[in-house]
Parts: sequence; structure tokens; C-alpha cells
Amino acid sequence: MQDIKVDTRDLIRSALEGEAKQTELDTLLDTLDSADLLHAVFRLSEDEQRQLLSTVSTERAADIIEDLPDSHTAELMEEMTARESATILEELASDHRVDILSELDTEDAEAILELLDEEDVQEIRDLISYPSDCAGGLMMTEFASYPRRATVREVVEDLTGREGDYEFLTVHYVYVVAGHRVLIGVIRLRDLVFADPDARIGSVAREAITVLPETTLPELDQFFDDYDIAAVPVVNERKQLLGIVRRRALLEALTEKAESDSMKVAGIISGEELRSMPVWVRAKRRLSWLSVNIGLNIIAASVIALYEDTLSAVIALAVFLPIVSDMSGCSGNQAVAVSMRELTLGAAEPKDVARVWGKEAVVGVINGLALGLLLGLAAWAWKGNPVLGAVVGGALALNTLLAVSIGGTVPLILKRFNVDPAVASGPLLTTMTDMCGFFLVLSLASLVLPRLL
Amino acid sequence: MQDIKVDTRDLIRSALEGEAKQTELDTLLDTLDSADLLHAVFRLSEDEQRQLLSTVSTERAADIIEDLPDSHTAELMEEMTARESATILEELASDHRVDILSELDTEDAEAILELLDEEDVQEIRDLISYPSDCAGGLMMTEFASYPRRATVREVVEDLTGREGDYEFLTVHYVYVVAGHRVLIGVIRLRDLVFADPDARIGSVAREAITVLPETTLPELDQFFDDYDIAAVPVVNERKQLLGIVRRRALLEALTEKAESDSMKVAGIISGEELRSMPVWVRAKRRLSWLSVNIGLNIIAASVIALYEDTLSAVIALAVFLPIVSDMSGCSGNQAVAVSMRELTLGAAEPKDVARVWGKEAVVGVINGLALGLLLGLAAWAWKGNPVLGAVVGGALALNTLLAVSIGGTVPLILKRFNVDPAVASGPLLTTMTDMCGFFLVLSLASLVLPRLL
Repeated sequence: MQDIKVDTRDLIRSALEGEAKQTELDTLLDTLDSADLLHAVFRLSEDEQRQLLSTVSTERAADIIEDLPDSHTAELMEEMTARESATILEELASDHRVDILSELDTEDAEAILELLDEEDVQEIRDLISYPSDCAGGLMMTEFASYPRRATVREVVEDLTGREGDYEFLTVHYVYVVAGHRVLIGVIRLRDLVFADPDARIGSVAREAITVLPETTLPELDQFFDDYDIAAVPVVNERKQLLGIVRRRALLEALTEKAESDSMKVAGIISGEELRSMPVWVRAKRRLSWLSVNIGLNIIAASVIALYEDTLSAVIALAVFLPIVSDMSGCSGNQAVAVSMRELTLGAAEPKDVARVWGKEAVVGVINGLALGLLLGLAAWAWKGNPVLGAVVGGALALNTLLAVSIGGTVPLILKRFNVDPAVASGPLLTTMTDMCGFFLVLSLASLVLPRLL
Repeated sequence: MQDIKVDTRDLIRSALEGEAKQTELDTLLDTLDSADLLHAVFRLSEDEQRQLLSTVSTERAADIIEDLPDSHTAELMEEMTARESATILEELASDHRVDILSELDTEDAEAILELLDEEDVQEIRDLISYPSDCAGGLMMTEFASYPRRATVREVVEDLTGREGDYEFLTVHYVYVVAGHRVLIGVIRLRDLVFADPDARIGSVAREAITVLPETTLPELDQFFDDYDIAAVPVVNERKQLLGIVRRRALLEALTEKAESDSMKVAGIISGEELRSMPVWVRAKRRLSWLSVNIGLNIIAASVIALYEDTLSAVIALAVFLPIVSDMSGCSGNQAVAVSMRELTLGAAEPKDVARVWGKEAVVGVINGLALGLLLGLAAWAWKGNPVLGAVVGGALALNTLLAVSIGGTVPLILKRFNVDPAVASGPLLTTMTDMCGFFLVLSLASLVLPRLL
């Protein structure tokens, strides 16, 4: 089915080349569901993506951008005119707008800010000052707040009048403020249904549960677990209402973090990659990590060079070196993954290093013995020499224990020193297990060399 | 600070051993914030966790379980009495209840079902029949629906009366049904505020956007991107309302999937692991994947055995074998990660194999040349032999191209054949790149053997 239909990307391409671009594109895009459109957009070159965004209506452009990763949007905007970018950004919610602007170079961001409303700009500057991984970085400034002396009727009428506004699409709460934006309470929308229309909202409001702008993602996660609400107000120390964080924004941030962590573990660290990006950007970003890794690899393998004599005496050992190093890497990575998950869940903290090591050591002994026995028997069977089996099996067993000990504890230790465990755990682990694996195989072999010949 | 305070886990432990368990625990747990409690619970043994859950009030037990992974809760319940499990499950929302029951053995689940209300049981059996990765598996059956002829006033009064019910805590919509639960429209709660109290709700309702129980996670993701609503009704082909999927449930499912994928990539595949689980379970689960991997590793390394003569003539090659295989694995894993991400984003589909390969090949050539040059120069410098440099550099360059080609396309191909790419991509990739890496280094060396001596 899918194979015989005309490719959406090609349709967009030819519409972009046509005379009446805008009309053609609008007609075409109206017929597409958004998954199809997204898949097509990702397969256009970045230049074509930019051309598409500047040709369609700004509402449509904003819709497309809602679905793109923020870092990708920022890369597109760096080559668009500030005017084009500003018009599109005006269509987005404040939290999303800030996410994109904070991915841009300062220069590009400033050029765009000059073209926005003064009020918007002030708001953006306030929001952009918070790191992205805390409540301040997740909050949006579109919320409904009214002075305590307003009546329920006035609030309901005002809300009705503003119903068309984008920012009120997802209002579930009305915040009650006094003086200089000091939050004194919250009313759930449904409470307005049941309230006396002539009551002051100050008397209807209940106490608001709030967070500070510095509240971290795990703390927010815990908060939304504890309280079943759709959004939480963010206040400063003087109780002034700064914005709201929607549960949805938190969950999206957590999903993004989980995905970006798994990219980092695999060595995509200096920025997210999509294959629509220019080749040299993709190659350079990947190389930045690979070139560190090849250095570590050479250091680890240099251990082998120290034992050239042993190796040339028992050339069969060369077969087992990569096996021992690979398998220890696998065991270690399992331990890294469990530690990363326990850190995310809150089941482990940096101070738990000793406990985690104890738990890993037991598994390391069991799995080390099992794998060592397997490899030892294979070596014995192959060369008919039980001592060779004991050497490679013993080396794998010891190195497995070492690998899970390193793998389990390194993420906690890195976290304690504020290094991102997703980036650094893997290379640290494999360099150490490689070095020790090579050392164990070759030094054990040297000890019993006469019996291996 | 953290180090000098008494460990919460120890406090819980001693309370569990005390005479007046329940009172002591209740007093203690009242003083803890939920992050502390969770961290402590994870560090108790599974037996102690069970003891805790059966000692505290069922509401408190349900609160704790809300924070635990479902698979973990199921493991705890397998050793609890059906009565204890049933009492706790009754406190949970229908979607969560079903998630836990579906992780249990059929026998355990049936024993619990026998103790629940008949109505609940029917509901559970309906829900549990859907796979967990579709709308049917994510939906909850707690929603507010009323017949079309009910008046706004009647609905508002009924909602007010039921406000205390757990299931109405998060109601944003009222569904209007006719006949046998056929959905004919939806009313946002806020619309009730503005409606004439005597109007029939059928006349106030707007058309509902719905999904089928079979709708997949990516489709739901796209759906919630397109429509800014908090929950979507799920209907069957006869338009009967079966349940609702909250945006929140979808986002939680997506986060869980991202996390479980990154666990699988690291070789934790046959069930999630927490270090509070019994040692033998943890060791067995990890070994199940490691033992497949050691088999693949032995197969790959057997290529080395075919070239023992070349290797014993030029023993220095043994140093470069692990470097070439490790580095190719790294390059290939980067390509795997980008493909996994593009699959998640909808930027790549299984049919894009050729396009993805083209995009990877260019990066593979650039990075292969860069890495090959680096390693080749290192080899030349070490042994003063440019031919050795050319052999290992050339092998790494070719193998990098191969690795990114395999890494980029294998996830798409596996997906096409419905194999989970998170589990199988890694082992497939490394086995192939190891074999080819060893083959390239040693066969190139054999070709120019006289010039390497």
C-alpha cells in the first residue's frame, strides 16, 4: 500500500518549485495528516524545510514547528531572516518560544527579540534566565489571574470573552492575586461552576500549593505524583506568581531527557542529530566523541604491546583478548543501565555507592563464574589445553566482577561530581575493563607460560 | 547534611520489628516526604517491602505503589495473599490496576479477581484484553457520562455530589451518550459554566474527536500533538464509549518506553531490574542475554583463529584487532541511536532503508577516513612501518563505513520484520563489525605480509 502511493515529500518539493507556491502548498497540506507531513518534512533538506516554513501561513509554520525538536527548529531559524522567525515565534506558547530562543546564538536571538512586542520581550528575558531543567525553565506565562476582590461573575464573563485566545485553551485553574502579583489562592475552573456568582473570588479560593523556580525535574516529578493537579503555580520568595508549570510540560521534558540520555550513551553527545542536517555537521559531531574514544582505545590496547613475548609464544591468546574485553564491556553496561534507571527512579542516590557495589559484586561473582566457565570450556575444547581454559576463563571471571563493580558505581560517582553519567560512564567503563581484561589474560598466561606451550 | 541524619530505611526497619507496627509506621510515614520514602522503600529487601505494604493502611500502600514500577509491584504481589493484593488494587485507578494485573501470572491474577467486585472484574477483563501499547491498553474507565436528555443542572448537581470520588479528581470533560453507551458528544467542564442550567446536555455538546482501542502509541502521540485536549474518548466501531485515554497516561507510557528501550540496548532485556530484587533473579536475567552474546563473540573471534600464521608473523597486529573492533562498534552504535531516534520522531520509517543508507554512507566515508588516518599514523609512529599503518588504517576506514551502514539500516529492517530494534540491533551490529574488522585487518595484512616483516 505505502509503496505505491506518491511520495508526499516529492509533492511538497514540486509545489515549492511551482509558480503559485503558497496556494499549491496550502491545498496539499490540507489533505495530509500530520504524521505524513512530519515524515515528509524530515526528509526534505534543511534548505527546503526553511523554504517550506517561509512559504506557508505562519499558523501552519507554527503547527509544523510544534512537532520538530527545539534544537532542530533553532538550526533552521539561524538561516532564516529574523522577521520570518519572529512572526512564527509569535504563534507559539511562551514556554516553547523560550525553549527555541535559548537554543539560538545570542546574536540571532537578539535580532529576533528586537522585532517582538516589548511586553513579550520582557517576559522572554525573564523566562530565559532560568536553566531549562527546573521549574523556571518549564513554566509558561499564559495563565488566568484576577484580583481577590473580583466577583465570580466578573471572572466567568472575562474568561468567556477571552475564550478564543490561544493561551486559554488549556486553562484549568484561576489564580487569585493581591497587590503586586502576590498569589493568595487558586480556584479550580469547576469550582466556579458551583460558586455564588456574586461572591468575591478571594472567598472562594483555596490555598495554592506552589513551587519555586529552582525546583528540579525530579522534585517536580515527585510533586505531580503527590498532587493530582494539571498545573502548579511557580512563585518567588515574595510569593509573587511568576508562571505555571503544566504536568504535560514536565512529562515532555522527562521524555526528552530519557531520549537524549540514550543518545548520549551511544555517543551522540554534542547536539542532537537528524539525517536532514548537513553532512559535515553530522560527521563533525560524531567525530568529536569518536576521537576521544580512539585515544582511550589506544591507551587500553597498549597493555597488549607490553606482553608481545607471551602473545607470540601462545598466539591463541589473541583470539580471546577481544572476547574478554567485549564480554566484560557488556556486563559492565548492564550494571550502568541499572544504575542510571535507579538514579532516575530515585531508588539510588550518589551516597549509595557502597550498597550498590555490594549488590553488584554478588551478581558479578555469579555471572563471572558462569561466563568464565563457558569460555574456559570453549578454550579447553578448542586447543585441548585445560590450562589455557583456566587462564581465559579465570581472566573473564575476574574481569566480569570488576566490570559490574565499575559499571554499577561509576554513574553514582559521576553524578556526585556533577558530571553527566549518560556521557561519561560508557567510555570510562570500557577503557578500564579493556585494560584490565588484556592485563588479566596476558599476565595470568605469563605466570603459567610453560604449561601453555 | 544528608550523611549525619538517621537513615529512613533503618527507621522503617525498626518500626517493622516493633510491637506496635501500624501506629509506629503511620507516625513515621507521616513525617516523610514521598521522595525520601521511595528511596527508603527501594533499599528494603522485597520481603520487607511486602511487610511494609501489608502493615500500613491500604490508602498508604496504594500511595506507595503509585510510585513503584508496575513490574516491581507485580513481583511483590506474587508473594502476598490475594486478599492483601485485592484490597490495595481496589484503591487504584482502573488503568493502573490493569497494568499491574497484566504483569502477574494468570493464576495469581485470577485469585485476586475472585475477591474483587463483580462489576470491577468485568471492567478489568474488558481492559486487560487490549495490548498495553495501544489506546485500549492505556484507557481508564473512570469518566463522567450522562444521557443526552439530562439537563445541565442535573449534571452539575450530580458532579457536585460525586466530587469526593477518586475517579472524578481529574474530570475535564463530560461525555454525552445515547442508547447503549453510544457517544454522541462531549462537553468541556468550563462550557457547563456558561450554559443555560435548563438546557438538555445533548444540545450543549460539541462533536467528540475519538480514537479506536487499536490506535497505537505513535498515533496517539500525533493525535495529542494535533488536538490540545487533556483526554480522548475511546470508542468501538459501533461508536460505543469504552473509556478515555488521558494525555498524561500517554506521556507516561512514552517515558517508560524510552527508558525500557535504553535498558534493552544495554542488555537488560528479560524484565526490568532493581537492586532490591533477589540476587539469583538479577543474575539469571542478565545471563540470559550475556550467554547469547558470548556465543556471538566466540563466532566473531574465530575469524582471528583462521589467520594465526599472519598473526604470529606480525604480532603487533594483535594490538590493533580490539581497537578496530571497538571503534567500529562505537561508530555503528551512533548510527543505531540516530535511527532509533528518527523512528521515534517519525522522521524515518522502515521503507526508508535506502535513503538512510545513503545518508550514513557519506558520514561513514568521512569519519572512516579521519579515524583510519589517526590510527594509521599511530601504528606507523609506533613500529616505524608505513605499511602497517596503511593496513590498520585502511581496515578501520572500511570497517567504519560498514559499521554505520549496518548500524543505520538494521533498526529499520528489524522494525519492518516486527523485531524489537532496541534489543537486537546492538548484538547484530557488533557481531558483524567484529567479524569484518578482524577479517579486514588480517586479510589486508596477509596480502602485504612480506612488507610487514
